Amino acid sequence: MPDVTPYPDPILRLMDSLTCLPGIGRKTAERLALHILHTPEVYAQTLCRDIIRMKKTVCICDTCFALSDSVTCRICSDPSRNQDTICVVENPADMAAIEKSGAYRGVYHVLGGVLSPIDGIGPEDIRMKELFCRSDPRTVREIIVATNTSVEGESTASYIMDHLRSRHIPMSRIATGVPMGGDLQFVDPLTLLTAMERRHAFQ
Amino acid sequence: MPDVTPYPDPILRLMDSLTCLPGIGRKTAERLALHILHTPEVYAQTLCRDIIRMKKTVCICDTCFALSDSVTCRICSDPSRNQDTICVVENPADMAAIEKSGAYRGVYHVLGGVLSPIDGIGPEDIRMKELFCRSDPRTVREIIVATNTSVEGESTASYIMDHLRSRHIPMSRIATGVPMGGDLQFVDPLTLLTAMERRHAFQ
Repeated sequence: MPDVTPYPDPILRLMDSLTCLPGIGRKTAERLALHILHTPEVYAQTLCRDIIRMKKTVCICDTCFALSDSVTCRICSDPSRNQDTICVVENPADMAAIEKSGAYRGVYHVLGGVLSPIDGIGPEDIRMKELFCRSDPRTVREIIVATNTSVEGESTASYIMDHLRSRHIPMSRIATGVPMGGDLQFVDPLTLLTAMERRHAFQ
Repeated sequence: MPDVTPYPDPILRLMDSLTCLPGIGRKTAERLALHILHTPEVYAQTLCRDIIRMKKTVCICDTCFALSDSVTCRICSDPSRNQDTICVVENPADMAAIEKSGAYRGVYHVLGGVLSPIDGIGPEDIRMKELFCRSDPRTVREIIVATNTSVEGESTASYIMDHLRSRHIPMSRIATGVPMGGDLQFVDPLTLLTAMERRHAFQ
């Protein structure tokens, strides 16, 4: 088969750039590039302006390390949020998921990762020291550890519990069990085991 | 639930722009935006430059109406391609698919659509007149009609056959049948019917 370049170079170059994005293969990149080619000029300009603006303006909150477009993020500077309750999460996407649930009205602490000795990630590589600095028993009423329920997430949660125990701040871990609307036959054995062990009385 | 905006505005705006792309929902847009946020600055600049460059430089070939970055496309100006064989396709993506197969060494004619009376698309809305102009028996040795095998594609093919019959140029239609590697149990009845009717002797 000859060396096939079925599109003009500018399209192929854009397809190359698009395939660097997660979950975008050659076929999807082709569809996206052809779509962008046929959209009005103003759409392409808006898309590029939005990319550049986001890269330029989004920074990290100096208090909770969430994504922010100001020095202190919207949540940390919101007087209607409980500033004395801290929810510890791994990354901004996990924080966004909790925000979308509408279940939480306190503030956050974004670790920016989890402890993972196998990958060489220790407490000094994530924002653990900053969490310990914030965890002052005079100002903090509760710390909710909401790292993921993976092996690394669980061990990071244990590490936090161990290090803060002496400060006598009430600490909790998000519940694990069968997801709401979940069908038992598709739930993995470990989750079912946890759901059985942590069963609670009917209310 | 409160009005939830879990990310700073610049990220949400980029997510809005990304969801205008085909096959990109809110969840994928979120993943893409966060990925772009964390890539090096130079990637975002390259992506934007590629988008703008493609929009500015890609045009339509004046001969075959394929996508091109010059007045006449690479294939139409390639002396090693058979300039006397024209393959008629619906759109640039179909042309790209044939090019990728490496099965064809002639030139193309991109209609830019198909006849579809129900959508109000007649011969004057696609590049039919231009095809008839190019179809000169003195210079063209064969016309291969490779419109899709949809109802509209088939009727467009018939329309072309009817209008060019009097010029006595050899005309052909791409073969229909069971796809290579296809499992008969997943092939639709109409395709099987066609494959039976058009069966050929063992060679």
